[in-house]
Amino acid sequence: MSGSSYGKLFKITTWGESHGKALGVVIDGCPAGLPLSEEDIQIFLDRRKPGKTKIATPRKEDDKVEILSGVFEGKTTGTPVSLIVHNTSQRSSDYSEIANCYRPGHADYTFDEKYGFRDYRGGGRSSARETIGRVAAGAVACKLLALLGIRLTAYTRSIGPVTVPEDVFDAQAILETPTCMPDRETSEKAEEYLTACMKSYDSAGGVIECRIEGCPPGIGEPVFDKLDACLAKAVMSIGAVKAVEIGDGTLVSKRKGSENNDAFAMKDGHVIKKTNHAGGILGGISDGSPITLRVHVKPTPSIFQKQQTVNRQGEEIELSIRGRHDPVVVPRAVVVVESMAALTLLDGLLLNMGARVENLQKIYPPRS
Amino acid sequence: MSGSSYGKLFKITTWGESHGKALGVVIDGCPAGLPLSEEDIQIFLDRRKPGKTKIATPRKEDDKVEILSGVFEGKTTGTPVSLIVHNTSQRSSDYSEIANCYRPGHADYTFDEKYGFRDYRGGGRSSARETIGRVAAGAVACKLLALLGIRLTAYTRSIGPVTVPEDVFDAQAILETPTCMPDRETSEKAEEYLTACMKSYDSAGGVIECRIEGCPPGIGEPVFDKLDACLAKAVMSIGAVKAVEIGDGTLVSKRKGSENNDAFAMKDGHVIKKTNHAGGILGGISDGSPITLRVHVKPTPSIFQKQQTVNRQGEEIELSIRGRHDPVVVPRAVVVVESMAALTLLDGLLLNMGARVENLQKIYPPRS
Amino acid sequence: MSGSSYGKLFKITTWGESHGKALGVVIDGCPAGLPLSEEDIQIFLDRRKPGKTKIATPRKEDDKVEILSGVFEGKTTGTPVSLIVHNTSQRSSDYSEIANCYRPGHADYTFDEKYGFRDYRGGGRSSARETIGRVAAGAVACKLLALLGIRLTAYTRSIGPVTVPEDVFDAQAILETPTCMPDRETSEKAEEYLTACMKSYDSAGGVIECRIEGCPPGIGEPVFDKLDACLAKAVMSIGAVKAVEIGDGTLVSKRKGSENNDAFAMKDGHVIKKTNHAGGILGGISDGSPITLRVHVKPTPSIFQKQQTVNRQGEEIELSIRGRHDPVVVPRAVVVVESMAALTLLDGLLLNMGARVENLQKIYPPRS
Amino acid sequence: MSGSSYGKLFKITTWGESHGKALGVVIDGCPAGLPLSEEDIQIFLDRRKPGKTKIATPRKEDDKVEILSGVFEGKTTGTPVSLIVHNTSQRSSDYSEIANCYRPGHADYTFDEKYGFRDYRGGGRSSARETIGRVAAGAVACKLLALLGIRLTAYTRSIGPVTVPEDVFDAQAILETPTCMPDRETSEKAEEYLTACMKSYDSAGGVIECRIEGCPPGIGEPVFDKLDACLAKAVMSIGAVKAVEIGDGTLVSKRKGSENNDAFAMKDGHVIKKTNHAGGILGGISDGSPITLRVHVKPTPSIFQKQQTVNRQGEEIELSIRGRHDPVVVPRAVVVVESMAALTLLDGLLLNMGARVENLQKIYPPRS
Repeated sequence: MSGSSYGKLFKITTWGESHGKALGVVIDGCPAGLPLSEEDIQIFLDRRKPGKTKIATPRKEDDKVEILSGVFEGKTTGTPVSLIVHNTSQRSSDYSEIANCYRPGHADYTFDEKYGFRDYRGGGRSSARETIGRVAAGAVACKLLALLGIRLTAYTRSIGPVTVPEDVFDAQAILETPTCMPDRETSEKAEEYLTACMKSYDSAGGVIECRIEGCPPGIGEPVFDKLDACLAKAVMSIGAVKAVEIGDGTLVSKRKGSENNDAFAMKDGHVIKKTNHAGGILGGISDGSPITLRVHVKPTPSIFQKQQTVNRQGEEIELSIRGRHDPVVVPRAVVVVESMAALTLLDGLLLNMGARVENLQKIYPPRS
Repeated sequence: MSGSSYGKLFKITTWGESHGKALGVVIDGCPAGLPLSEEDIQIFLDRRKPGKTKIATPRKEDDKVEILSGVFEGKTTGTPVSLIVHNTSQRSSDYSEIANCYRPGHADYTFDEKYGFRDYRGGGRSSARETIGRVAAGAVACKLLALLGIRLTAYTRSIGPVTVPEDVFDAQAILETPTCMPDRETSEKAEEYLTACMKSYDSAGGVIECRIEGCPPGIGEPVFDKLDACLAKAVMSIGAVKAVEIGDGTLVSKRKGSENNDAFAMKDGHVIKKTNHAGGILGGISDGSPITLRVHVKPTPSIFQKQQTVNRQGEEIELSIRGRHDPVVVPRAVVVVESMAALTLLDGLLLNMGARVENLQKIYPPRS
Repeated sequence: MSGSSYGKLFKITTWGESHGKALGVVIDGCPAGLPLSEEDIQIFLDRRKPGKTKIATPRKEDDKVEILSGVFEGKTTGTPVSLIVHNTSQRSSDYSEIANCYRPGHADYTFDEKYGFRDYRGGGRSSARETIGRVAAGAVACKLLALLGIRLTAYTRSIGPVTVPEDVFDAQAILETPTCMPDRETSEKAEEYLTACMKSYDSAGGVIECRIEGCPPGIGEPVFDKLDACLAKAVMSIGAVKAVEIGDGTLVSKRKGSENNDAFAMKDGHVIKKTNHAGGILGGISDGSPITLRVHVKPTPSIFQKQQTVNRQGEEIELSIRGRHDPVVVPRAVVVVESMAALTLLDGLLLNMGARVENLQKIYPPRS
Repeated sequence: MSGSSYGKLFKITTWGESHGKALGVVIDGCPAGLPLSEEDIQIFLDRRKPGKTKIATPRKEDDKVEILSGVFEGKTTGTPVSLIVHNTSQRSSDYSEIANCYRPGHADYTFDEKYGFRDYRGGGRSSARETIGRVAAGAVACKLLALLGIRLTAYTRSIGPVTVPEDVFDAQAILETPTCMPDRETSEKAEEYLTACMKSYDSAGGVIECRIEGCPPGIGEPVFDKLDACLAKAVMSIGAVKAVEIGDGTLVSKRKGSENNDAFAMKDGHVIKKTNHAGGILGGISDGSPITLRVHVKPTPSIFQKQQTVNRQGEEIELSIRGRHDPVVVPRAVVVVESMAALTLLDGLLLNMGARVENLQKIYPPRS
């Protein structure tokens, strides 16, 4: 059925359509005692808003979050945390033309086939506004992970052909450039590329990377719920993502074993890996090295060129999309990737708590 | 916890270690009335056995499957189908040297960190023998999918640098070459490459592709349980897979929207796509075109060169792995990829059955 | 973790505290195409409101429901249906005295032990206001079940010692008496009993029955997810319920097999049972007869007599509860029982859709 | 679908039919480091075997368990524990007569309606032999619970009208009487009653109670996964159980609040309840008092009197059951009730581990 829930123990359920009254998320299973305010969540939501730059939609999205339940005296109570964002700036007239036709690269046709009809206003449930719930929940997960010394950093590696060089990393630039790239110079080149795309009524794709530091070894479950498998699902579930790589990813298929194995060594009394081709995961379980992943995002399908398509009556037609659309979704998807990774990792930490009998004995000591 | 179950409605649970008494799988939720014999399953298991060629381990694995429950008078009964394969050729002495050290690229270290100790015989639960359960269940899923007109074909696209050209596809060759490539000529080149790897005590990676034809549109759930997200998890959960691509995959990040969108058109009264960059999935839901995916497999980590590592006492040591190991896991993983895709798709078909009220009315007509 | 989700395919997640901003429920997996309005849901919510009679709390609860998502042009879209009820009449001052002590018969102590602290306003998450989400979702389930010819009727069988005779059943009286009894005369006696309870600062328990008609045979899964097991969990999860009976329930333990077996016979070409001691369920699967169940509800624990208890500092104290409390929860729990039964049955119908290969072939016929 | 899995974190999947090759269970999520032998499990299985007395079936069931995976060097490894019991004494000829007709009180009719056909040998999957998997897994759960200081005791309270007095409790008698009653004198009376039943070709029902001591407060999840709701489902899923009571159960519906509330008090620095009408659970969460529950079991439906029924062709017929059947299932179900309660409680303990942020900090301390 609808598949709007994610996570086994830190379980989120998102709801809402692009042009409905509101969107939101319910977090069920958030541990009690986490300090949490609306401001903590708003910071994340603001990162997914369109910027005020030329490379983003001129649409204004206010997206103020409200905590409806699950927080008392500034801390989570252990019961469901319900978060809501009211829709304020949706103009249905922008989208009325698409009610009857199937936009190429969109989910219009597949929703109609699945459900028999669809909420066509702004893409309805398949709109990127759906990610508001993911990001709001991701903010909560990140706050809790930070208490455990775990931090995540996602950023744009490339937009179209413009790529941040491997040896450059300016963490501050991620939050300050409109591209979310860790390099101001590359970001400017990417903006120029996007400006050219927009002039030719076209759009661009790109690559997002995410790095997780401080994760203890042992997280992830053998066989089907491997940590890398769960991360792959988490980020592939974001609209427009078409490929996922863990660690060195696609490169490994061309390598020899002697080039790809990471040697173990000792450092300060801990086992470490001398290299990290594996991306911090061995046999589906975290190994204590940074966890690294990379996703490939397709170009925005909404372009202003004329396109061939069909309508609901089965007639071939020519479509011209109008309205307000980002020429690239990558920068706004960065915080979504970070959020999905955080949700996945936190769930993995919770699932692993009972891995050893001695852990149960720690939580449930004999009563005197 | 342990994560050895897969699927929501067609749910499988695998069990067993490399050197235990047996391995197996329980399928819970197989629809009643499917004709099923041990031979149906054995055909699949035989495809994952090491071949009798120079590029495979000389280890002999018999792997005869036995149906223990859930089949009566030649048909599934709707109750759990339990399948077992007894371990017959395991020699523990082969592996005794690794009991105390962490092999690079293996899960030895991470299992110890997670559980406090591990069954070190042949990798225990993290051995590739774990895939026996996946393949046995995959055989059942494929049999049912075939009744619905859906067929899956997985094959090797490349081994190391040796790649099957895009315009060549000999389906028979997949089943007859030791590499599972759809081209005999490329397969011979790959065998030569592997022979050279073995001479230098090294191993190789490669790429597997899978194509699903006949899937109706509408399969896959919006948001978190998108069909591509579920497929990504399914194949990323196979040991040694480090990247997953749907449709054109990584290529899309460099493309423009006008190049990547697939135009809709009409053909024989059906909606079709003129191209299939999307790989048969739009908005996470099947669109009726063939579903295509690609996985990148790392080189076998067990190589016979000396490697740096540490032991359980935290001492840095030099390790020489002996024993019987494939120089490449790709050919044997082909049927595993096909099986995981089949399990995922069948589960998707079952999950979608209640998508419309009218479907319930078909299954539960009013009683006269 | 928090356990606020119910159902596998028709999955609901409820949220909200007694004195928070709002309460609500998200329904994920509602089939598309169900006509649904706020009025449909309001009718159910109005049934759980305190009446305007002497036997109910003088507290005014407005409880207006709003549909936030998942309905378009008057029909469900297949995506999550989010329902919200704003809290309007909560007076925190009513409850401030209980912040620091453990009320007998309430969850104050156990919440503190579980989470380390609690939202003490009006019982927080353990308040009976939590059932708003259950009833709102139950209204949707009942609407869909009605389309399939299935109808549920819950009512009060007894309050304290006052019991409706077995041979009396006035369906209209259920909706019109303040006790929800199917007999006006017994209802008046029960009201007298409750008036006496209130005068002595005391409260009463009672029994609720539920009857499901029109359920096709075959619903319920063997072994752990038997229909009766799922119904038992569903209704036992309602606060204050301490016992559940299916069919003749506790009576069967004193019977002989010859008295308890229901003989099969034929009627109008259908298999029927001549009696229905089993309550419509055999081997955990519906048999086509009416499904009957009975729950026993404890007396309201909030009474105005002085009670012995302890506070959070571990001191023994004497407690006098004030505020507005129903002398009996039974009448308001009737619609909650009906809702939980409906949610359980609908989920069972969805789970059963893939029980036979031929059902898949009906939903997925070969494409021409 | 089939519903043969139970538990969220300590998850078991049972399989097997009465007259198949074998029956078994896979435990996925058993914490690593639990000492476990086949003997530990055999002790539990021996308790569910028919005794050698006159009140039990003369059928001999050997039921030797074998551990196939998940245990290494005498301890659980954290990976799936697969347990198998081979069927040895099944005589298909005993059951051939029932292939074509529907036995009253059995699941023959409902299985046919659900699946279109059934394995009719000995009841197939609906046979009481299905409980072998439950009991084998329950033995493992009980072993782990004992390490945490938690112990369960189930026993027969009554058979037909013969009831053990409230003030008598001889724990040793439970294991030594053929009725599993905690009183030898009552047990003898019950045997006389059963002998009379058998002479009149009839059968009897009864009542089983279970008591759990040493459970810490805080176990159970609010709203839908309350501990009492989960226990109710657990035991109601056992074939022949028709009612479940927690604590004082059905008695509470006749009580007043002042009679039913349990006062809190202090003892040895702990919060205790002066009485335990609630049966150790408040608001669905354990309160530290003993947890008590009671189940009502229907009389064995297989009786040797002539019964009216129908066959698969829709003809009314007269049926005489032959074969070997217990006149009462209660004594053999005692260990099944104990097992289901243990599985439920252990799962609850695991689910509760992440209830507080401070628990995560205990398991994942900052790395130095």
